[in-house]
Amino acid sequence: MVLKLRRYSERPMYLQIKEALRSEIVSGTFPNGTYLPSSRQLSQELGVSRITVTNAFAELEADGFVQGDSRRGVFVLPLWEKAVATPDTSAEPTPGWQQSLSKDPGWASERMRLDLLWRTRKSGTIPFNALRHDLCFLPANEFRNSLNNVLREDGGIALDYEANAGYLPLRQTLSQYLRHQGIQAEAEDVIITSGGQQAIDLLCQAFVHPGDTVVMENPTYPNALTAFKVRHARVVGVPVDADGMRIDILRQLLERESPRLIYTVPTFHNPTGAIMSATRRRELVLLAHEYGVPVLEDDYMREIRFGSPIPPPVASFDRYGNIIHIGTFSKSLMPALRLGYVVARGALRERLIMLKRTADICSSSLIQRALNRYLTSGEVHKHWKRVSRLCRRRQMTMVAALERYFPKSAQWSVVEGGFAIWVSLPQDVSARRLLNESLKHNVSFAPGELFFIEPADQPFMRLGFAPVNEDQIERGIKALGNLIRQQSAKGGIR
Amino acid sequence: MVLKLRRYSERPMYLQIKEALRSEIVSGTFPNGTYLPSSRQLSQELGVSRITVTNAFAELEADGFVQGDSRRGVFVLPLWEKAVATPDTSAEPTPGWQQSLSKDPGWASERMRLDLLWRTRKSGTIPFNALRHDLCFLPANEFRNSLNNVLREDGGIALDYEANAGYLPLRQTLSQYLRHQGIQAEAEDVIITSGGQQAIDLLCQAFVHPGDTVVMENPTYPNALTAFKVRHARVVGVPVDADGMRIDILRQLLERESPRLIYTVPTFHNPTGAIMSATRRRELVLLAHEYGVPVLEDDYMREIRFGSPIPPPVASFDRYGNIIHIGTFSKSLMPALRLGYVVARGALRERLIMLKRTADICSSSLIQRALNRYLTSGEVHKHWKRVSRLCRRRQMTMVAALERYFPKSAQWSVVEGGFAIWVSLPQDVSARRLLNESLKHNVSFAPGELFFIEPADQPFMRLGFAPVNEDQIERGIKALGNLIRQQSAKGGIR
Repeated sequence: MVLKLRRYSERPMYLQIKEALRSEIVSGTFPNGTYLPSSRQLSQELGVSRITVTNAFAELEADGFVQGDSRRGVFVLPLWEKAVATPDTSAEPTPGWQQSLSKDPGWASERMRLDLLWRTRKSGTIPFNALRHDLCFLPANEFRNSLNNVLREDGGIALDYEANAGYLPLRQTLSQYLRHQGIQAEAEDVIITSGGQQAIDLLCQAFVHPGDTVVMENPTYPNALTAFKVRHARVVGVPVDADGMRIDILRQLLERESPRLIYTVPTFHNPTGAIMSATRRRELVLLAHEYGVPVLEDDYMREIRFGSPIPPPVASFDRYGNIIHIGTFSKSLMPALRLGYVVARGALRERLIMLKRTADICSSSLIQRALNRYLTSGEVHKHWKRVSRLCRRRQMTMVAALERYFPKSAQWSVVEGGFAIWVSLPQDVSARRLLNESLKHNVSFAPGELFFIEPADQPFMRLGFAPVNEDQIERGIKALGNLIRQQSAKGGIR
Repeated sequence: MVLKLRRYSERPMYLQIKEALRSEIVSGTFPNGTYLPSSRQLSQELGVSRITVTNAFAELEADGFVQGDSRRGVFVLPLWEKAVATPDTSAEPTPGWQQSLSKDPGWASERMRLDLLWRTRKSGTIPFNALRHDLCFLPANEFRNSLNNVLREDGGIALDYEANAGYLPLRQTLSQYLRHQGIQAEAEDVIITSGGQQAIDLLCQAFVHPGDTVVMENPTYPNALTAFKVRHARVVGVPVDADGMRIDILRQLLERESPRLIYTVPTFHNPTGAIMSATRRRELVLLAHEYGVPVLEDDYMREIRFGSPIPPPVASFDRYGNIIHIGTFSKSLMPALRLGYVVARGALRERLIMLKRTADICSSSLIQRALNRYLTSGEVHKHWKRVSRLCRRRQMTMVAALERYFPKSAQWSVVEGGFAIWVSLPQDVSARRLLNESLKHNVSFAPGELFFIEPADQPFMRLGFAPVNEDQIERGIKALGNLIRQQSAKGGIR
């Protein structure tokens, strides 16, 4: 037996000896019940002190590999060998609970949706699939300054646990920001979450039990849909037109269903981009009151807009306490903050704080403090303006390219904000097949079925213009246009 | 009507006018259906251009406050006033769904537990309640360097969304770290979570349905207990002695119950500090296999230890795939990272990734990258050594103070690691009453009932020594000793 030791390593010698002996045991040099060489013998062989070897033995014993025997030395324990013999994953039995986990039918469709989503994220492609702004335009330097100031000035407390509901000064800043939008939220009504997604997830946990009905726009934001579906909710869709959710159809639906929750993205609806009109917002408030249903208003991106005013949040019209408003900084600033918020009162607030505690205790104090500094510095407004201008330019470039390269039967509408255009394709085009083809040409997009409650192949695509530069937009749309024409000319037959 | 405008404000004039008009509308200066002054009139009164006023009107119209009428001007909409009249929260009706949320009996006990926990966090007290190390000793500078390096070198990608399962290089680093402990985890088996708490929460969601039985040590970690209880699990306790969970009692329990999950904190058990012996770890692995029950091993703090070796994780003994190992950097590094991990394979891994996605999409890429740099820099080992030495010294100071000031009938055992000592108080002492008194003397501690499955007043206290300096330890323990003697002398009668 030759133990490989590194004389000048930072790793203490006794640990090196222990690890070397452990691999010898695991590899079978010392089978069950055999004795290791004595500490005297090993210390001579290895040129180390006896106490070093004894320490290595003690570590091995604590790890359950060996046991000391006062007379003859140290022997290898049998059970251990059985438990950690060289792993051979092919031979490992699968526990029964693993099998039952894989059999839940409610998960299969969402698993397929997720797989498709992952497929669109092929690196090296033109990322029309992404709903975010350009990584080059993220305010990395300004945010680094905020981070450094927090670490320098706040010290250790910025690295400790934060209150479950969030860093109070940030909640105060947000309550002011919300009041500007007409939402009367006190700082204590604002609960900080790990992105808007966590707000959706906690609300789902608070309201939705298996079998409960949830109403959403159809199409809708896939990660909200998945959150409801994996909780075995029954999801019912309401169509969307240029003025947002069809409130008339919602009313009919509420006549016959008793949903636990209505989820809506009223501003720059994902994926269609629709902005719910002020009239419909008011009607939604009244309907929610009339039928006693809470409404989750996902206001994920209000700040990136191109001039025309947009109506204030649905929650600003609400006097009855049914509109639960959530927001996020993932789109308007940067996803890596993982910060969002929910405005809630009464028993719901209490419950959300408890659920936030069980979910992840709190969001990072450091990041909350840095965000608060950044928001109160005034830099953020400059950033939003800069990004809005950039997005507007790219949107116009994409529209021009669409008009040039897409067939007449493709349709889209141009919204005054956001990051993407929703395109209705000719009926004989399969978006799924189009994606397969376009990925081969290094162009990605988000196919329609990602967004529909029942994920069947739908002749739609969401094209994100924000993270793609003008040259790539031109090239990418041209390639897509060619592929669509090919499919459509063939009448969509495989 | 006098509109207050600030001539030299950064806020555009048309928005100032819009907001001023909005408050006049809300306050009733312009009731339903009345006309606003004309744009010509307002522009003269305010000394601004007519287009500025028209823009303000357009904003108000988009917000649903007013409507343009081509002949007579702009009039106030009726429905709006009804919906946003000056908020009078006292008069606001509480929606029925709020009332039903407040009536869930399963939540009441956990709400009480949480209230008690919050009560121990009184600022300005000697924080024996806290289970963390000293904020002065957090590696703030080293971590700042890592953060800055990431922001400088990785650029925008560090601020984007991360893969649901986590940043691959960090998962690779962790898989090496785990292999050092004898756990054969590939990088793809490691899922990054937002702290250890999220790992617990996701596993609870994966396994536990209302009414399912979960087995835990009793006492146990309160936030895990709450996660199971608010999901309406039936929680069954197994006692703990100096060698950890009583595996003999677990065996009896498994004879008659079919739990969905066993949760254990085998190393520096919270709150008792017990270290499960290697023998019991092996027995637990075999029992889990025999009864086909998954075991959640919460290895929350392995690195802060005082010399003697501790047995390797339970998962390192497992050859059958039943031990689900989780860890966190909240205790050994800093809570504000909000980073932990879970080792999972097969269908469970798939499900956890989906649940992570619905929970919060991903943990912060920036923080994951910074942690990975810090972990691979070698600094972390120096940090762990430094903190371990500090904790050892404070532990010894606390033990000496306990021996000096606490009555003979109080008992504790000294563990070779961790942040706290678990003290059994004289039977006639009420820990709850003791806490009320000690908070008045600006000393906090964690009372026993926080940790027991049924939160009745229990004569135990957990005393965290790590965040408290030697002087405060001396003073605080002396004050607690006096209060205990007072209560115990009085025979504990209220």
